[in-house]
Amino acid sequence: MLAIPSVSSLERSELKSRIRRRLDGKTKPKGSLGMLEEIAVSVGCILNTETPSLILPQMLVCAGDHGISKHGVSAFPSDVTWQMVKNFLSGGAAVSVLTRQHGIDLTVVDCGVKHAFEPKPGLLIRRIAEGTNDILSSPAMDYAQCEKAISNGMEILSSLPGNALLLGEMGIGNTSSASLLMARFTGVDIALCTGAGTGLSAGGVEAKAEILGRALARHSHSSDPVQELANLGGFEIATLVGAILQAAHENRVIVVDGFITSAAVLVANRIAGGVLDRCLFAHCSNERGHAAMLSSMGVTPIVALGLRLGEGSGAALVWPLIISACRILSEMASFAASGVSGQAR
Amino acid sequence: MLAIPSVSSLERSELKSRIRRRLDGKTKPKGSLGMLEEIAVSVGCILNTETPSLILPQMLVCAGDHGISKHGVSAFPSDVTWQMVKNFLSGGAAVSVLTRQHGIDLTVVDCGVKHAFEPKPGLLIRRIAEGTNDILSSPAMDYAQCEKAISNGMEILSSLPGNALLLGEMGIGNTSSASLLMARFTGVDIALCTGAGTGLSAGGVEAKAEILGRALARHSHSSDPVQELANLGGFEIATLVGAILQAAHENRVIVVDGFITSAAVLVANRIAGGVLDRCLFAHCSNERGHAAMLSSMGVTPIVALGLRLGEGSGAALVWPLIISACRILSEMASFAASGVSGQAR
Repeated sequence: MLAIPSVSSLERSELKSRIRRRLDGKTKPKGSLGMLEEIAVSVGCILNTETPSLILPQMLVCAGDHGISKHGVSAFPSDVTWQMVKNFLSGGAAVSVLTRQHGIDLTVVDCGVKHAFEPKPGLLIRRIAEGTNDILSSPAMDYAQCEKAISNGMEILSSLPGNALLLGEMGIGNTSSASLLMARFTGVDIALCTGAGTGLSAGGVEAKAEILGRALARHSHSSDPVQELANLGGFEIATLVGAILQAAHENRVIVVDGFITSAAVLVANRIAGGVLDRCLFAHCSNERGHAAMLSSMGVTPIVALGLRLGEGSGAALVWPLIISACRILSEMASFAASGVSGQAR
Repeated sequence: MLAIPSVSSLERSELKSRIRRRLDGKTKPKGSLGMLEEIAVSVGCILNTETPSLILPQMLVCAGDHGISKHGVSAFPSDVTWQMVKNFLSGGAAVSVLTRQHGIDLTVVDCGVKHAFEPKPGLLIRRIAEGTNDILSSPAMDYAQCEKAISNGMEILSSLPGNALLLGEMGIGNTSSASLLMARFTGVDIALCTGAGTGLSAGGVEAKAEILGRALARHSHSSDPVQELANLGGFEIATLVGAILQAAHENRVIVVDGFITSAAVLVANRIAGGVLDRCLFAHCSNERGHAAMLSSMGVTPIVALGLRLGEGSGAALVWPLIISACRILSEMASFAASGVSGQAR
């Protein structure tokens, strides 16, 4: 039986007020740093301090293959999953470049890739199976496999240092799982949850939506979010769910990337309610469905840059903005200390 | 007679195609880095290379006072201009914190502040007068003063190292000048160009728009953009115009901040047509009029974070995204080199 770590809602209205007062006392017009001030409040509340400092940020890229990819739901062949894992580790992928730029540690997890990797620094092998089953004809995985992937994610997270987790993923076919999970948990029509992924044509998206509609119909509803995840998810998504639950339990700042990692948060938040309080949503991607998914959770992304790459690239890209928000709280002078006159009218 | 440096339009369609091909060859779906790819193309074209590298970035914060501020067009008293100049230099302002975070050199220029500053590292005294005249009753400055401020900006820029200029400003009352310049150069109604600045109430904004309407009516149209700048501008805006012209002439990357610095670009581009090709617009601010001003120039800002602080804070904040765009071009692996399979369908 899976032991879910406890995640309580953050009830820190007194701290939140203190952080807002601190921001209002800084030498700038009230509220004039916009979204940066919202980030500062969120991070301060998660880390339970008026002067948060982010240390040893960890990018966790979970990878897995998907049985449904054989139905042509992706513009790229399945082999790209393992090829990109190697690319992450050798430093040539977007997420490699961006984590290197910002001094973010990068860990890649084989959660169920169809490939036998040699051991390599930065790679963890936590393979449940060689890819999921084809969701069109059976559950993606069985319940025990799903629990195992979740507990892998919890264990991995526990072993990582620092107080911030950035979420990344790789898996040809995994927008299909994310779309199905979105449709199931939000009630939004599957066609509106289905997008181009790595770059399907309009016709390709239409065909994908038809396939996903059939897949969704095949799986009965369950009140157990872990069962839904087993039916519709992927090994990398389930591992991410575990990492998110553990990070939320430990009050780490969770930086969510795009459509897939947002779907993992959607699931994790159904399993334990206080997850969203610990999350910053880096960006709204160009993947159809992402905006509606974020909106269904009532969250506001930091930027919208037309990204649709995944890997954690968007989370890594906005990382310095999150650091900036913390520095504003710690380093900016106050009106009182600097002798700058306050608002006159 | 003012010698305007030559700024030709960038005609680099062959280079642009090469940069796009280079991006398309990187291990990611085509176009999946969205705005980051657009930045990469722009910076590459300005610096005339497929692998641009930004060196010794310079934040130039130009400060000046405004005669019109006595009419209550700002929520803060005029003294805040010189007080904030000191705050910039002692490291406590938002722009100080953000430039320090990113290793951007900070230079502050007294272009016409009502204060006698002691010499201090990082401060340049290029004071034309102790604030501009009241635009409601006379031109902001005479023509020779405007030319002098522009040539100051050109000289300052020439003396600064590096290949990137970030624009900042400080001046209680300077949204009024920016609104007037916008109305004059774009034809947009002055009421739609007028916003809350540092934080006026709705009633305050209405009163400000009425005052600015009278100011605009007082000054006749001129076909000479320098004359318009002399009539409606400020010493810090004119100095910025000079810095922009020189930076464009030298093919530096110009990172534009908010409403005021965008107005300076608007003027500079009227003086010499190729300026916009060298500019990246960091953000769309919450100042009413900024979105329409950007749109009138046909440019797309990188982010929209609800900022309305000025100082160059938004330009400094997005600086790491611009670095990321360059790193993608230089450091990401290609499909060819990495052995990752390309798009299948």
